[in-house]
Amino acid sequence: MENLKFSATASSASPAKTIVEARGFKIIIDEPSTLGGTAQGASPVEYMLAALAGCLNIVGHLIAKELDFTLRGLEIELEGDLNPNKLFGASSENRAGYSEIRVKITPDADADKELLDKWLNIVKDRCPVSDNLSNPTAVSIMLS
Amino acid sequence: MENLKFSATASSASPAKTIVEARGFKIIIDEPSTLGGTAQGASPVEYMLAALAGCLNIVGHLIAKELDFTLRGLEIELEGDLNPNKLFGASSENRAGYSEIRVKITPDADADKELLDKWLNIVKDRCPVSDNLSNPTAVSIMLS
Repeated sequence: MENLKFSATASSASPAKTIVEARGFKIIIDEPSTLGGTAQGASPVEYMLAALAGCLNIVGHLIAKELDFTLRGLEIELEGDLNPNKLFGASSENRAGYSEIRVKITPDADADKELLDKWLNIVKDRCPVSDNLSNPTAVSIMLS
Repeated sequence: MENLKFSATASSASPAKTIVEARGFKIIIDEPSTLGGTAQGASPVEYMLAALAGCLNIVGHLIAKELDFTLRGLEIELEGDLNPNKLFGASSENRAGYSEIRVKITPDADADKELLDKWLNIVKDRCPVSDNLSNPTAVSIMLS
């Protein structure tokens, strides 16, 4: 298969609120009022968790089909720890982003523990969002 | 400042559609019909680009304030290249996620090129989403 290209455009509606358009879908990103936002949407780091959840669902179903078991659904809980000191310029000791992301998946499936363990390992390996978070990705950011 | 904890919960509405809840916000993730979805929302990898845009907007305004120049707004264009061979199990040569993400920022600001270059370098360094994409992040995914 050829490389796919994904794209999005975004405008700042305010210093904390961003309106993103991707393939005709409008995504509103904002911060809570405590961080200077207007609380009209989830925050960027929450969208990152959402992206991971969506990816695990899709890839989870794909791999269940490959391994030939019935997967009726998934419940996913995600959390991430983030020290805001670097973001706010208070210290450069911490990294800017999440230091750790933890995900708990509850599959509703006709599969035993051994098969689900095998499934989970393949899902982790083939989920694009999990790959981009776990491994370094070239991100070039330039002024136009 | 103390560590912050961010969280989200997600349910599969279908093999391609995920409903995520984060701090009361509902995020719908889906795939186009060509990939087995119902096209009710952007895809996971598009949400990743959106998260990056939202983060650059917030941190961009924060750093403009620190550097004491007026930033009236930002336009951001993002694109990413992704080879789907690993995701779909056709080959394990490629990585699963984006091989590269490119971002072009157009700031509407009272600042010369030199100041904007300085601004951009600080923004890249202190943006949590940019950090989590550019550098490895511990992602633990477990069965509950």
